[in-house]
Amino acid sequence: MPNGGLPDDRPLPVAVDELATDRATIAADRWRTRQNESCPTVDPRRGQMTAESPSRDEPAQPTNAERIGVWLVGARGNVATMSIVGARAIATGRAETTGMVTEREPVSSLELPPVSAFVFGGHDIDPTSLVDQAERQCERNGVPDEETLASVRDDLAAVDERIEVGTAVNCGAAVTDDSDHLDRELAIRTVVDQIHDDYESFRTAHEIDRLVVVNVASTEPELASPDRYDTREALEDAIDSDDRDLPASVLYAYAAIDAGHPFINFTPSTGNALGGIRELAVDRGVPHVGRDAKTGETLVKSALAPMFAGRNLNVLSWEGHNILGNKDGLVLEDEENAAGKLSSKGDVLESILPDVGHNRVRIDYTPSLADWKTAWDYIHFEGFLNTEMTMQFTWEGSDSALAAPLVLDLVRLIVHADEFGEGGFQPHLASFFKAPIGVDEHDFSAQLHWLYEYAARHSDV
Amino acid sequence: MPNGGLPDDRPLPVAVDELATDRATIAADRWRTRQNESCPTVDPRRGQMTAESPSRDEPAQPTNAERIGVWLVGARGNVATMSIVGARAIATGRAETTGMVTEREPVSSLELPPVSAFVFGGHDIDPTSLVDQAERQCERNGVPDEETLASVRDDLAAVDERIEVGTAVNCGAAVTDDSDHLDRELAIRTVVDQIHDDYESFRTAHEIDRLVVVNVASTEPELASPDRYDTREALEDAIDSDDRDLPASVLYAYAAIDAGHPFINFTPSTGNALGGIRELAVDRGVPHVGRDAKTGETLVKSALAPMFAGRNLNVLSWEGHNILGNKDGLVLEDEENAAGKLSSKGDVLESILPDVGHNRVRIDYTPSLADWKTAWDYIHFEGFLNTEMTMQFTWEGSDSALAAPLVLDLVRLIVHADEFGEGGFQPHLASFFKAPIGVDEHDFSAQLHWLYEYAARHSDV
Amino acid sequence: MPNGGLPDDRPLPVAVDELATDRATIAADRWRTRQNESCPTVDPRRGQMTAESPSRDEPAQPTNAERIGVWLVGARGNVATMSIVGARAIATGRAETTGMVTEREPVSSLELPPVSAFVFGGHDIDPTSLVDQAERQCERNGVPDEETLASVRDDLAAVDERIEVGTAVNCGAAVTDDSDHLDRELAIRTVVDQIHDDYESFRTAHEIDRLVVVNVASTEPELASPDRYDTREALEDAIDSDDRDLPASVLYAYAAIDAGHPFINFTPSTGNALGGIRELAVDRGVPHVGRDAKTGETLVKSALAPMFAGRNLNVLSWEGHNILGNKDGLVLEDEENAAGKLSSKGDVLESILPDVGHNRVRIDYTPSLADWKTAWDYIHFEGFLNTEMTMQFTWEGSDSALAAPLVLDLVRLIVHADEFGEGGFQPHLASFFKAPIGVDEHDFSAQLHWLYEYAARHSDV
Amino acid sequence: MPNGGLPDDRPLPVAVDELATDRATIAADRWRTRQNESCPTVDPRRGQMTAESPSRDEPAQPTNAERIGVWLVGARGNVATMSIVGARAIATGRAETTGMVTEREPVSSLELPPVSAFVFGGHDIDPTSLVDQAERQCERNGVPDEETLASVRDDLAAVDERIEVGTAVNCGAAVTDDSDHLDRELAIRTVVDQIHDDYESFRTAHEIDRLVVVNVASTEPELASPDRYDTREALEDAIDSDDRDLPASVLYAYAAIDAGHPFINFTPSTGNALGGIRELAVDRGVPHVGRDAKTGETLVKSALAPMFAGRNLNVLSWEGHNILGNKDGLVLEDEENAAGKLSSKGDVLESILPDVGHNRVRIDYTPSLADWKTAWDYIHFEGFLNTEMTMQFTWEGSDSALAAPLVLDLVRLIVHADEFGEGGFQPHLASFFKAPIGVDEHDFSAQLHWLYEYAARHSDV
Ligand SMILES: NC(=O)c1ccc[n+]([C@@H]2O[C@H](COP(=O)([O-])OP(=O)(O)OC[C@H]3O[C@@H](n4cnc5c(N)ncnc54)[C@H](O)[C@@H]3O)[C@@H](O)[C@H]2O)c1
Ligand SMILES: NC(=O)c1ccc[n+]([C@@H]2O[C@H](COP(=O)([O-])OP(=O)(O)OC[C@H]3O[C@@H](n4cnc5c(N)ncnc54)[C@H](O)[C@@H]3O)[C@@H](O)[C@H]2O)c1
Ligand SMILES: NC(=O)c1ccc[n+]([C@@H]2O[C@H](COP(=O)([O-])OP(=O)(O)OC[C@H]3O[C@@H](n4cnc5c(N)ncnc54)[C@H](O)[C@@H]3O)[C@@H](O)[C@H]2O)c1
Ligand SMILES: NC(=O)c1ccc[n+]([C@@H]2O[C@H](COP(=O)([O-])OP(=O)(O)OC[C@H]3O[C@@H](n4cnc5c(N)ncnc54)[C@H](O)[C@@H]3O)[C@@H](O)[C@H]2O)c1
Ligand code: NA
Ligand code: NA
Repeated sequence: MPNGGLPDDRPLPVAVDELATDRATIAADRWRTRQNESCPTVDPRRGQMTAESPSRDEPAQPTNAERIGVWLVGARGNVATMSIVGARAIATGRAETTGMVTEREPVSSLELPPVSAFVFGGHDIDPTSLVDQAERQCERNGVPDEETLASVRDDLAAVDERIEVGTAVNCGAAVTDDSDHLDRELAIRTVVDQIHDDYESFRTAHEIDRLVVVNVASTEPELASPDRYDTREALEDAIDSDDRDLPASVLYAYAAIDAGHPFINFTPSTGNALGGIRELAVDRGVPHVGRDAKTGETLVKSALAPMFAGRNLNVLSWEGHNILGNKDGLVLEDEENAAGKLSSKGDVLESILPDVGHNRVRIDYTPSLADWKTAWDYIHFEGFLNTEMTMQFTWEGSDSALAAPLVLDLVRLIVHADEFGEGGFQPHLASFFKAPIGVDEHDFSAQLHWLYEYAARHSDV
Repeated sequence: MPNGGLPDDRPLPVAVDELATDRATIAADRWRTRQNESCPTVDPRRGQMTAESPSRDEPAQPTNAERIGVWLVGARGNVATMSIVGARAIATGRAETTGMVTEREPVSSLELPPVSAFVFGGHDIDPTSLVDQAERQCERNGVPDEETLASVRDDLAAVDERIEVGTAVNCGAAVTDDSDHLDRELAIRTVVDQIHDDYESFRTAHEIDRLVVVNVASTEPELASPDRYDTREALEDAIDSDDRDLPASVLYAYAAIDAGHPFINFTPSTGNALGGIRELAVDRGVPHVGRDAKTGETLVKSALAPMFAGRNLNVLSWEGHNILGNKDGLVLEDEENAAGKLSSKGDVLESILPDVGHNRVRIDYTPSLADWKTAWDYIHFEGFLNTEMTMQFTWEGSDSALAAPLVLDLVRLIVHADEFGEGGFQPHLASFFKAPIGVDEHDFSAQLHWLYEYAARHSDV
Repeated sequence: MPNGGLPDDRPLPVAVDELATDRATIAADRWRTRQNESCPTVDPRRGQMTAESPSRDEPAQPTNAERIGVWLVGARGNVATMSIVGARAIATGRAETTGMVTEREPVSSLELPPVSAFVFGGHDIDPTSLVDQAERQCERNGVPDEETLASVRDDLAAVDERIEVGTAVNCGAAVTDDSDHLDRELAIRTVVDQIHDDYESFRTAHEIDRLVVVNVASTEPELASPDRYDTREALEDAIDSDDRDLPASVLYAYAAIDAGHPFINFTPSTGNALGGIRELAVDRGVPHVGRDAKTGETLVKSALAPMFAGRNLNVLSWEGHNILGNKDGLVLEDEENAAGKLSSKGDVLESILPDVGHNRVRIDYTPSLADWKTAWDYIHFEGFLNTEMTMQFTWEGSDSALAAPLVLDLVRLIVHADEFGEGGFQPHLASFFKAPIGVDEHDFSAQLHWLYEYAARHSDV
Repeated sequence: MPNGGLPDDRPLPVAVDELATDRATIAADRWRTRQNESCPTVDPRRGQMTAESPSRDEPAQPTNAERIGVWLVGARGNVATMSIVGARAIATGRAETTGMVTEREPVSSLELPPVSAFVFGGHDIDPTSLVDQAERQCERNGVPDEETLASVRDDLAAVDERIEVGTAVNCGAAVTDDSDHLDRELAIRTVVDQIHDDYESFRTAHEIDRLVVVNVASTEPELASPDRYDTREALEDAIDSDDRDLPASVLYAYAAIDAGHPFINFTPSTGNALGGIRELAVDRGVPHVGRDAKTGETLVKSALAPMFAGRNLNVLSWEGHNILGNKDGLVLEDEENAAGKLSSKGDVLESILPDVGHNRVRIDYTPSLADWKTAWDYIHFEGFLNTEMTMQFTWEGSDSALAAPLVLDLVRLIVHADEFGEGGFQPHLASFFKAPIGVDEHDFSAQLHWLYEYAARHSDV
């Protein structure tokens, strides 16, 4: 199939050259108005939609017999723990797949690896064992329930053995205060090498066919002037010259993509959003996605805001208050660490409702809520004849129960992209993220539509 | 352009033969999974997508110099009054067009008649003057405000002169108890003829180029076994044999479409949803749309429910409670009259979430709210690992301020369809309705997408 | 202390002669304005405030060494089950007393029997064992948790042995459809005698010192014209002449009070609210309370409505929607059975806000909620310069977890009243009920104040 | 009647010596448990309950023929404007008294001056005229409506003539940035003298019989270490030694009370809460009240929190989010100015629920809301058997429409206290304030009960 596997008449999404000087993203309005245009020309040597990406030697044919390594950065956190618990419980038939997008039509018609094929490992900086973490979640939140927990306890203990101490460079006081396991004296290049070695040892030890690295670690403070690392060259120079500003998420992403492992950034941290990493991924033909999974208030926003836009209602103010009680909330109490989260949450609205009068998001830490995240949003809008009206909603979700199935979905889907040699960012996975790399479209339906088109396209193969 | 102006490669919407025995509607799942299919064959003699519809002699070229007659059935009701107030205030530059879908990209790029070209008239069964109605709304609800009202008072008085007494056959006790202006002794055919004469006198008297009939009258009780009027022949036989079961909305629709006037059914009443009327519209090549405008709780549902579906979350219960204080609310207190409304509200959810465990909608009359409609929805859903979560929202909208701009939009858009000879039901207008005739898709984004495609297609012309 | 142990200068509550022709209740406004009045004269022979009630031979001195029999009518229902689970878990130190009013100052300063002294038994018409019921609650609602349940499983099994088949006379189809264990052929007097025998056998078998009967059975349909049983004589005549209109709750109450056992009516059923039963209780000097425990939405109302009243805000509409998923909800789906509940819920508001414009309460059955009761209340009110404002709240409570501690409180407090020979209705316990027998005051603070005064008065003893 | 008109047996409130070393407040728990105690002895020479306060020469007999001067500090603000509009509209029979506590039983049975007797004047630092302010409120908020506004426009213009430029010493940048009308070079004593002169000129010019000063100016930043002004002597020394730390509210209060004028502090600013001012008020026998009127979220809290306490429910977290759009909100955006407000709002909860796990109040500025204040409160609580439950509420009120009637109430009530020679703080007016001076009781019902007792006591006179 010429030009990247996309039929000539496909309306969405429109692929663009990711390496153009302006680092153009896929413009939102294209979805709405130019859906009959043919696909822009993509440089076959390095576009992410190209089947024959030069540096990859994976077969294009999917095979479900593979052993998929899932390396979780932040492997003992809530999201990681719930993902492992869920995957193992599903594998043994003890849990259902509710909440997994890949288990529902039309995405389920893709040939995707079963979660039973997942072999977990990871990095963390917290020594508390995975079993203890799961027990705490069971006790505080009731999720997982005792029975499910019992059925996976041995698996958790086994995975815990495969968790290595990670790096916490530039993760902010809120994160590193908790930890004294880290050698802060190492050169950045050495840190990268160690991470790389951890990946490879795991691959070898567990006979992994394909390794996916997933960042589910605590949110880092925002990186100042990320533009200085906008090219692969600038980034690699920085690593080599021991630039102490580079945050951990970038190092994990670099080590993964450089070695050809697909990378998922579930967090708001910089990671693969950096220009230099994106260029590296195109060069290596490695698929990567991110950032900041869309699981609660922002998900609702991305479904509701288009309604106000579509009806030409004038949103005067949209106030969002989030309260949550887990460690993620504690880290986000730190203004530094919260900055990135708040900006990715805020951007969604600005993009869908460019004329919104007032748009504020607050995140507060409320310990008693444990893993429950409650959001109250208040929307003040104006309609016909200047009539002012309001809508408000409250969302009460279990944070990690919303996140975990998406981790599993993303691993399955990035494996699929990897099998088909679709390197670079993955616009069809935009619906999973608050700040989808390379995509300006924040309308959840539009994003989902891209995913369904991807599924339709690949199901015909 | 062959087969109805639709390019072969258009993914959505998929046109079907409206007259197939099962009165097939456009299947929702098509949008999601078969978007690359080519358009099904439409019988060129009578399909609604055909340019050369035999019975129409309108020019295909749009012209904005026309005088558009807008005949409102229920012309002194809240929705009608607010529509007239708004149209006149916009025409004189005193009001903005917030809330009008046709005033926003991409629909605004269509060549549509300006609202200043609208000449209003109508039927009602309540003698209270339009000026009094508007003053009451101003006083009770603050909409319109005093200044706007003052600027259109003369226009309202002029329109009021053009309101004729309508028929209230089978409108239910809740409606007809209010009225003794109706001759219940007339034969049904005579009633139809009188309605027809009222349309034509208005056309002549006001030099109307194109007349659109809009049903904004009170909700009628549901018609029992509508299937008996499933063909044009059966319907016309019933009229001729003085079948006293036919409700007013069907008579208004019949008289309009039979005379070639586009018909909009803003209400849940039967009207043009009847098989016989739909066949007549195809025969006559007249565009018609309906039913039950989607302005509040159901609108939100149609934007939110796809989010739960898209994330494979399992909705256990969706409870919707509506309280409203206007005359519409009073009529809906009557269980008979409410039945249709409740079913069109409920269907939206069943369609988007076929596995929803429990789905109830309540409408209650709360006089102090006047024109304000408040809805509380409580959504109990289950995610990963059987985790139960909840979302709730409250919507507080001014009923007629939400409805009126859509009336103006629909008139403009049906005029456009009429100019282009696009007879029959109008799938691209599905986003305006709770129970869109001929369409099974209830996802607001998908429906809107069809409208945008229509706009894109016609903007290229 | 003369006239019933009440100091002359006590401002609240004002006792009245319960047997006056109009069955006067304690007027609400007294609390607010006449609190310095001295206590009205009470007929010493039969007033409920009298220490020397003729028919009682209990010692006035409280003693905690007693074994308290708690006979639950509806012993296998949710409330009963949670009460037994809680009492046993508290007795063994495995649960805390959160939610028990008697465990907090100033009520905790009274000398009350410990819950460890409670010996449970009861009537039911459903054969499902108490252990099964508790397991179902644990599984569906997470309350009690598995650990607590395990610790009381043996106790539950033991209590289950002491549950007799009760009568379901006039309990409505919603209740009796579930049951075929009842002999409908027995004469009413025989039924009363059997109930009486069940009480006495239990007393003897378990060496009970003091027996309290608690009605926690399903809500019955409202009794038509209860006035016909307004005297003890009329009631006893009806029993003897086999009047088939008498509902089960009256029979349980009659058998209890006639035999000198304090009676608690936790439900909206008629029971001890009947004039004839009230007269019997005065004659026998037996304390009794009811009806319809105030645990959720109505509790909030009784705390909030006085705020609107106190600030002279004009409540235009108060809408209350309750959704619940347990068997109580299922029974209340039946309009007949719901009538009493709705009226006791509605009265609270009418009493506190006599000028409320519109006051509606809805109860709907939403199975997925299991034992969770969610209420949404919408309050539309008017303030200064006709400014319209709104307040809304959502309450999400576990029905039986809110009810059970009050069952334990009430048993402890009625035992106290019984020890002090305080027969008749118990105005100081009004705060526990939606429709407190003999009391018109619905302001929760005022009701609570009476309880605190009672505690202060008796702590001085 | 000896000792201040309080009957010996009055249960509440319990008066204490305001000048005791610890500046003891009226303990909350007294209300609940010691309500039968007799009133503590009050030093007749200086207690605030004393009839024969030495420095006052007002007649003890109330007379309604008086002209009451109402001097508003912040006379052009929202609250002031709405108070004047309302008072004048009531005086001319154009507005009702909804929202006024003094117009409802039992308080209405007191002999209070009619609002028609009020003559308004005041200080402000903003030159925008009262008419302009009222027009802006009408336009932005719809309150007052156009008709009411028209009827009082001349009165507003007349009052505007009587508004003098005030002082803004230490009001914070958020306030003074708006103003350059202030001579910052004057000595503090000179400022006090000028304020005093403004009061006296107004009195003379308008033949005022009794002058009440009301602080409705913008919230000042919190005063650091207020203890240094804990005695009258320390305060007067500070004034004389030109202490530049003293904030404007203290100077306004000092000038008023020193000259014998009752003082109402409607704001969270220091004012009469200062020890030195309180001592001065006792010495002069002048009644004063404050601070921070309780009109919205905190009012609801003070009605609801006692319900959780009374039922022994364990509040784990109480989150309160306020959004408001008026100038008060803008000033409170400034963290300095917000501090006092947040602390008085927070204290209410700590006092009623001493064991509350987590208690946060946020105030955010949301311009589109204009005068509307919306609060969302989320209450996470634990009941029996550790069952976690939640309650949430949303309050949507018009800020100044809630405040204005209370300004009028307080003027009427403080005039009454003044007529009866009841100097010092006024515990019976605690229900009006978030941080009632001299009172620890925050339960709204208990506070209201004191007011009703006061009314009952004085109605008997
Ligand atoms: N839960 C959701 O719904 C959701 C949604 C979007 C994004 N996220 C993001 O996912 C991430 C994880 O969330 P969580 O709730 O599991 O948080 P968590 O605090 O429970 O877990 C984070 C884990 O990362 C570890 N960690 C921190 N810094 C690390 C480092 N430098 N290297 C290796 N490990 C490190 C911590 O020790 C911890 O075990 C957060 O960034 C959060 O913002 C979560
Ligand atoms: N307002 C909305 O947001 C909205 C949304 C969807 C549908 N609708 C529907 O629009 C319709 C109008 O709503 P409304 O709020 O204006 O109601 P309304 O009660 O204010 O007005 C209805 C008018 O129709 C007139 N009428 C009744 N029966 C008639 C008949 N047989 N012939 C002619 N006139 C008749 C009445 O006299 C009245 O003037 C209702 O059916 C309502 O359900 C409204
Ligand atoms: N849970 C609360 O917060 C609350 C509050 C106020 C009142 N109530 C009332 O308490 C009662 C019990 O509530 P629940 O949730 O436990 O209900 P439930 O349906 O779980 O239990 C009722 C039990 O009563 C039994 N029963 C029915 N009729 C009987 C009869 N005639 N004789 C003996 N047993 C009979 C049923 O078999 C069932 O086991 C209801 O009337 C309810 O309205 C409950
Ligand atoms: N509205 C309510 O419900 C409510 C409730 C409790 C407390 N309050 C308090 O009442 C006060 C007034 O509220 P508002 O909404 O009217 O605010 P506002 O900002 O509309 O009015 C305040 C006025 O005070 C003036 N001012 C500021 N500093 C002054 C000074 N030093 N001397 C004289 N005038 C000065 C301002 O110029 C302005 O005109 C605020 O402190 C607010 O916190 C209001
Ligand atoms: Na149609
Ligand atoms: Na009682």
